[in-house]
Formats: sequence, structure tokens, C-alpha cells
Amino acid sequence: MLKWSEQGVSILDFILRLLAFVGTLGSAIAMGTTNETLPFFTQSIRFRAEYDDLPTFTFFVVANAIVSAYLILSLPFSIFHIVRSSAQKTRILLVFFDTAMLALLTAAASAAAAIVYLAHKGNAKVNWFAICQQFNSFCERTSGSLIGSFSAVALFVLITLLSGLALSRR
Amino acid sequence: MLKWSEQGVSILDFILRLLAFVGTLGSAIAMGTTNETLPFFTQSIRFRAEYDDLPTFTFFVVANAIVSAYLILSLPFSIFHIVRSSAQKTRILLVFFDTAMLALLTAAASAAAAIVYLAHKGNAKVNWFAICQQFNSFCERTSGSLIGSFSAVALFVLITLLSGLALSRR
Repeated sequence: MLKWSEQGVSILDFILRLLAFVGTLGSAIAMGTTNETLPFFTQSIRFRAEYDDLPTFTFFVVANAIVSAYLILSLPFSIFHIVRSSAQKTRILLVFFDTAMLALLTAAASAAAAIVYLAHKGNAKVNWFAICQQFNSFCERTSGSLIGSFSAVALFVLITLLSGLALSRR
Repeated sequence: MLKWSEQGVSILDFILRLLAFVGTLGSAIAMGTTNETLPFFTQSIRFRAEYDDLPTFTFFVVANAIVSAYLILSLPFSIFHIVRSSAQKTRILLVFFDTAMLALLTAAASAAAAIVYLAHKGNAKVNWFAICQQFNSFCERTSGSLIGSFSAVALFVLITLLSGLALSRR
């Protein structure tokens, strides 16, 4: 593993960032456009569900948007590292921000996952009902949008490992 | 910042790991021992709350226990780095596992935070009630146990930064 060229590591870093960007942007858009109106209504009960009914989903969209913006901004640095493999300070800077972004993204993804789980299963002991029985497509959409985020989390772990590798090559 | 001695960085790394260990262990214990029985009961409604009524809290306890066990196991490596500042491969190994543990811990802490928020505020739109109105001390205990976890997350970000610094010094 330690035999890789520094440039190869930097190019892989660039590709992983691009993939993570696609994942987070896709998640943000998929979650942000989620809403479902049931084809019947009564006056007493609400039959429309939107992602921002649950604050956690709003946080999820915001965090994914922030991370995808960060990833776009980090691409020039990644290109710079391909050209100048010996750069040190910018790499350390990226390790720090990558780790912070990893934490932010994991927080958003798993908080949303906790809520999605609750929406699917409910919790009989504290009387929280499974809303997925009514809002089928809403639940499928929100569950699906978690995939992009969790993939990006895995990619971030790899990116940090690559940065560690690149820094150790000096 | 780059003027620090390699040994100083390793010693700081050791201290931060120790602090993070205390935080995660404290969180696991605080959450794991949480339960509350209300001083009255009826036959229809349940007046006892335990942490494992909510699967997310179980995950929180397990994740915190895993991370604190990992931190204890990583201490010998940290001491090894103080003695041999030039060690490279073990540092890269630690960066990788640190990042994975950071992701696990953040996932657990923020999923628990999402549930705690729901317990405090409830959500009128999907008919989930705020259970904290009945279970006061249960809610305080679970909220408090989040502190240790989130502190440990911040410490992990610092630890990763320090590893990056140490790797770049060669």
C-alpha cells in the first residue's frame, strides 16, 4: 500500500471527493424535494407530509448542502496536490476540515436515520406511531436519501486515510 | 503551530485520548443506568422508562462502550509514539481507526440527540408526544449523557489533526 506514488494518491483523492460530492448533493436534493399529500382528507387530521415537518430532516438537508459545497471548494486543493505532491500545509488543512465535515455529515445522516427508523417502526412504549403506514412514498424517499449521505461518510473515511498516507510519504 | 516538537504532539495525543476515554465511558455508564419509575400507576398506561425502551439509546450505549474500549487499546500505541517519534505505519493505522471511531461515535451521539430532542419537544405534525413531561429525570439523565459523547467527538477531531501534524513532520 505504501508503494503508491504520491500523485496516484492525489488523483484517487480527487475522484473520491467528486463521488462524495455527488452523494451529498443527491441526498440534499432527494430529501429537500420530499413531500406527499394523501389522496383523501378530513378536517381533523392532516394528510400532507413534507420533509421540514421534522426538524431533523431540515438539519439533514442543510448539513448535506454544506458538505457538498465544501467538497466543491476542496477540489482545487485536490488538483493542487496532484500538481505539487510535496505540498504539506494545505494537506494538513484539508485533513482537519475533512474530519470536521465527516463529523457533521455523520451527525446529520444518523440523526435522520434514527427518525426514519422511528417513522417505519414507531415505538409502542412511548406511544409514537409508525407514520410510514400512511405516508408510504414519503418514507421511501427519506429512507433512500440516506444512502447518498452514508456512502459519502464512508468515502470521507477513505479520504482521511489517503491524506494520512500522503502526509507520511515525505 | 508547526514548531512543536514531535514528542510534545504525541504527549498531547495521549492526554486527549485519555480525556475522550473518560467522556465516552461516562456517557455509556450514565445512559446505561438510566431508568425512572413514576410514583403512581394505572393498569392501562406504563409508568416506567428505561434507556433500552428506545433502540437508539441502546446503540448509543454500545457505540460509546466500543469507542472507550478502542481508546484504551490505542493508549499503548500513543505511548509508543511518545518514545519513538519517527514511527509511521502505526500512526497511519491510528488515523484510519480514529476516523472510523469518530464516525461511529458521532453517529451514536447525534442519533441519540435526535431522539432526546423528540422526547423534549415532541412533534405535533406526526402525533409524537413529548414524553419528558412525565419522565423528567429520565430525560435529564439521557440529555446529560450526550455531553460526554459530543466532547469526545470534538477531541477526536483534534486527535486526527494532531496525527496529521505528526505525520507531516517527517
